[in-house]
Amino acid sequence: MAEYRELANAVRALSMDGVQKANSGHPGAPMGMADMAEALWRGFLHHNPKDPKWPNRDRFVLSNGHASMLIYSLLHLSGYDLPIEELKRFRQCGSKTPGHPEHGWVPGVETTTGPLGQGIANAVGMALAERVLASQFNRPGFPVVDHYTYAFMGDGCMMEGLSHEACSFAGTLGLGKLVVLYDSNGISIDGEIKNWFGDDTRKRFEGYHWQVLEVDGHDGAKLREAIAAAKADTEHPSLIICHTTIGFGSPNKGGKSASHGAPLGDDEIKLTREALGWNYPPFEIPEGIYKEWSAVEQGERLEAEWKGLFGAYAEKYPELAAEFKRRLEGRLPEGFEQKTADFLSQLQSNPQKVATRKASQNALDFFAKMLPEFVGGSADLAPSNLTINKESHEILPGKFDGNYLHWGVREFAMCAGNNGMLLHGGFRPYGGTFLIFSEYARNAIRMSALMEIPALYVFTHDSIGVGEDGPTHQPVEQTSTLRLVPNLDTWRPCDQVETAAAWAQMIARTTGPSDIVCTRQGLEQMPRDLEQVANIARGGYVLKDCAGTPDVILLATGSEVALAFHAAEELAGKGRKVRVVSMPCFEAFDRQDQSYKDSVLPPAVRARVAVEAGSTGLWYKYVGLDGKVVGMDCFGASGPAGELFPKFGFTVENVVKAAEEVLR
Amino acid sequence: MAEYRELANAVRALSMDGVQKANSGHPGAPMGMADMAEALWRGFLHHNPKDPKWPNRDRFVLSNGHASMLIYSLLHLSGYDLPIEELKRFRQCGSKTPGHPEHGWVPGVETTTGPLGQGIANAVGMALAERVLASQFNRPGFPVVDHYTYAFMGDGCMMEGLSHEACSFAGTLGLGKLVVLYDSNGISIDGEIKNWFGDDTRKRFEGYHWQVLEVDGHDGAKLREAIAAAKADTEHPSLIICHTTIGFGSPNKGGKSASHGAPLGDDEIKLTREALGWNYPPFEIPEGIYKEWSAVEQGERLEAEWKGLFGAYAEKYPELAAEFKRRLEGRLPEGFEQKTADFLSQLQSNPQKVATRKASQNALDFFAKMLPEFVGGSADLAPSNLTINKESHEILPGKFDGNYLHWGVREFAMCAGNNGMLLHGGFRPYGGTFLIFSEYARNAIRMSALMEIPALYVFTHDSIGVGEDGPTHQPVEQTSTLRLVPNLDTWRPCDQVETAAAWAQMIARTTGPSDIVCTRQGLEQMPRDLEQVANIARGGYVLKDCAGTPDVILLATGSEVALAFHAAEELAGKGRKVRVVSMPCFEAFDRQDQSYKDSVLPPAVRARVAVEAGSTGLWYKYVGLDGKVVGMDCFGASGPAGELFPKFGFTVENVVKAAEEVLR
Repeated sequence: MAEYRELANAVRALSMDGVQKANSGHPGAPMGMADMAEALWRGFLHHNPKDPKWPNRDRFVLSNGHASMLIYSLLHLSGYDLPIEELKRFRQCGSKTPGHPEHGWVPGVETTTGPLGQGIANAVGMALAERVLASQFNRPGFPVVDHYTYAFMGDGCMMEGLSHEACSFAGTLGLGKLVVLYDSNGISIDGEIKNWFGDDTRKRFEGYHWQVLEVDGHDGAKLREAIAAAKADTEHPSLIICHTTIGFGSPNKGGKSASHGAPLGDDEIKLTREALGWNYPPFEIPEGIYKEWSAVEQGERLEAEWKGLFGAYAEKYPELAAEFKRRLEGRLPEGFEQKTADFLSQLQSNPQKVATRKASQNALDFFAKMLPEFVGGSADLAPSNLTINKESHEILPGKFDGNYLHWGVREFAMCAGNNGMLLHGGFRPYGGTFLIFSEYARNAIRMSALMEIPALYVFTHDSIGVGEDGPTHQPVEQTSTLRLVPNLDTWRPCDQVETAAAWAQMIARTTGPSDIVCTRQGLEQMPRDLEQVANIARGGYVLKDCAGTPDVILLATGSEVALAFHAAEELAGKGRKVRVVSMPCFEAFDRQDQSYKDSVLPPAVRARVAVEAGSTGLWYKYVGLDGKVVGMDCFGASGPAGELFPKFGFTVENVVKAAEEVLR
Repeated sequence: MAEYRELANAVRALSMDGVQKANSGHPGAPMGMADMAEALWRGFLHHNPKDPKWPNRDRFVLSNGHASMLIYSLLHLSGYDLPIEELKRFRQCGSKTPGHPEHGWVPGVETTTGPLGQGIANAVGMALAERVLASQFNRPGFPVVDHYTYAFMGDGCMMEGLSHEACSFAGTLGLGKLVVLYDSNGISIDGEIKNWFGDDTRKRFEGYHWQVLEVDGHDGAKLREAIAAAKADTEHPSLIICHTTIGFGSPNKGGKSASHGAPLGDDEIKLTREALGWNYPPFEIPEGIYKEWSAVEQGERLEAEWKGLFGAYAEKYPELAAEFKRRLEGRLPEGFEQKTADFLSQLQSNPQKVATRKASQNALDFFAKMLPEFVGGSADLAPSNLTINKESHEILPGKFDGNYLHWGVREFAMCAGNNGMLLHGGFRPYGGTFLIFSEYARNAIRMSALMEIPALYVFTHDSIGVGEDGPTHQPVEQTSTLRLVPNLDTWRPCDQVETAAAWAQMIARTTGPSDIVCTRQGLEQMPRDLEQVANIARGGYVLKDCAGTPDVILLATGSEVALAFHAAEELAGKGRKVRVVSMPCFEAFDRQDQSYKDSVLPPAVRARVAVEAGSTGLWYKYVGLDGKVVGMDCFGASGPAGELFPKFGFTVENVVKAAEEVLR
């Protein structure tokens, strides 16, 4: 055990020194969790530092991401491409050691954490992905997908509501290969948590049907026993409550919130070194300790064994093996583009009046046939979001050979869980809820954008078109607030053709997430030629034009496109030259080159009217100070949708009036 | 019991008939909860239908707000001003019976519910308000504040993470006068919940240190026993798990999700009437049943008794009684305006470089002296948000004689709980967290805006100025997304004077919530004369001007105002006529009359540059197609704040360049 402790002290030293050098950061949590990390990483974790993307590695998630120096220390010590120089540059611009662990930037970081509760929900998604992928690809004697998912979480994660959603869901499904170590140190930023967090967490998690173990979080041997017991129960997720001391080793700040979010200070670090018996200078680790920590040899052996297994699998099941590779690499299947183009053209020539949520389901039916990597779901709104498609089969407790998830009324866990499935690899998850309740999951949506992973969101019931459910359920500002998230594409299609085209773009996108915002109510189909159909992908295009330079341009999205279209007809009848621009995706349009954008919105034409049943604010980017927006910046009301649209000014008459005003 | 059942059947009949007539709504939940409601409302609830605002009434919250026909039936039957005609107009435009219960519109509805989990969190806030107000105003022999808070919640609320946050907090504090009845019917929209929600809810709530009781939710006598036992334990909140059948009474749809969200249909309603033995036509209630339900007589007696008590209290403690009235009416104390004006003028003449989060704390120190109705708090970021002021005293488990709440890491429960405290009356709660984590509480913020209640939010660490914590913690789009919420005022002040002025406006506002967005880093103070100081309240004003018509206008908020100011100096040095407009609150500015707005932003001056370390999109409303925005539409990075501002283009040089470009 002395040995375990000394190895853990290497993490403690790097953590306190890294924070001190940065003069910023969180030393307490890594110092408190160092023994837990030593036990897990040296005793159990299957990974290969030389190939952080090995598909069958165990996943490790640091849900309390402010403890970032813990994972940087672990990655460095076990042999990842994270040299000591980077640890010395902790929290500096451009370093590989940012303030919170960033996936895609730091090798070996499985997910970006920091916003509390989301890491554990990502881990639930990863553990779920493992089970589902195993059910799809494993064959007798060939467990090509067979790993554990481990997560560390702290008191903050435990307090966040998201931990309830994610852990209740994991317990219900019986994700037995999920092992969570809870750093129970009794301290949060405001001080001793007993005054604001008195939970009996054992009871709570037993209520979720988890296996709950409890252990001294500084006893390397006992920790190993607990982790072994956790692994042994593959029917239930396991929570190991690790009783720890924050800032373990610091004589004056250990056990106190003083060690949480600020450097210990040079004097205290000196005292801590003495107390720990760690007699090496900052950032120096003895060779023997590096050797004990290195996971390189074991990792290469484990991966080689797996490669042997996979080679044999590929011989026996060549098509499965090829498909496994395709899915792990996130490549679209052959012929995707052509089939999609044919589908769009066929839809355009068979016009239908249909709600875009239904058009979305039709699109899912089409795409799901090509995309076995789809895992769909909804936060208990399957019959409303229409997220179940013809290829859907339920995933149920203990039964993972499906591709549809009933998330329950857990929007945040759904979105964070889907992020975890995506990060695991092998899947293109999509999740649905009412647009208004995207707010419950808002930061998970943002995290998918920050991580640049192509999560898919289906948000239906997108305006006062919700009708009788009233203002609590009627989105007003939500489409606009989604448009403001960096690197998120938001599509609000106007008919079945734009809906299918949006889905095609969303699926093809690899560098970030996309959401589709759909109506509850039926929408008439717009006429288009094939060039217009192709231009939907550009996010904004001329839907209806006039001869010569337009007098006025009407811009609209979704359910208001038909309104703009009919207003244009009326204005044309009055001798006005009117262009109608459909703008299903601001982000895609903004990415076009200037000449395309100018061809759609000629800079000289300043008479512009935008129409959207939602916030007006963002539209001024396109209509400017001389334009007008027919929108709504107030809350909706309860009543039949057919009465609400005129009540809030969405009539041909009003659009015509606005156009005439800007033409004055 | 036959009697109880028949009385409950009146609720069932009204509910299924109301939904049927609307051809929209949720009959299953009200029919399932009718016996629970009968037991609580007839057996225990202290309220006066003729005075829904009686301060000492028990509070009742329907957290599963889609069961709105339940509360409308109860209000109607017990004698509130909600005539049968309104029940017949369920879910119609302008009716007093909207799709979800709306506070402020329907008499007797204590809070607007529908977004699941929030009602229970509101109820926690109300129960907390009762304890705190009692500790402040009750005197020996004078329990002028002494009531219970009751809530109904369903499986959906139980699944939402918010229920964990709120109930864990209530259990830790020991809110013994909170009694929650859980409608456990095993059904949600997707079907039988056992496949996605397997919790042992008893264990979970025992883990929160609640008293947990379990009962047949259709047995009026047993329900009464359970509610009495719940009331008797005043040390712990109580959860009564009521085992019920959704759509109770419907032979073919009862117990099934078919009864959840759609009318039963005329045939099934007929069969249900037969099964229930309810032989009256739709919307007809026999006089005898009305009489049994009426709470008017009892309510007037209870209120009269309380008024007697309060009268004696007012004689013995006249000042306390006057203060109690002032606080319940939400009136500001005498002299508020003058003292505030003096404070602002004094700050202006004593310039300081200070972070606006610190300036916010200084303002709280000043205002808290005048406002004992303040209840402050933070989601475990007290030392960062600087939400503790000189008048703050902690509220702790079992100890309610304070005014500062450690909410723990529970942003959503904090905001929804504060809504509950506000709705209870007697308090002006404010809650703090990092601006980025406003996302975790987003829909509770929206609900305060929808309810038109003056909640106060302190959001600090408002940009890349966060520095080393990196992009997970750096808001980019959050200020803009808050600006999009209808009826929410968002203030982003630039120095200590604007910060104090913002607080004054936020406090004085009665018709909706406000948030203040503050920096982590120090900001230099801007020069102003007293007219300019007064104009801060207008949301936008000329901070620095030039002689004659400006060549270019620079607009900015918060930490970028100084940048604009210095860029203006440089441009002036190059012979340009430059105006700088500080825009701390878009909403307040937009409310000004056109002539004021035109005086600040002359329509003819189209060369405009906005500067804000956040999303650019909303600024085009002010700068138009000919202007430019120096902002950021990408995520931030981890590094020292001083390096990040130039890295992302926030330099005098860049602002000058943008100005010169628009001047071309």
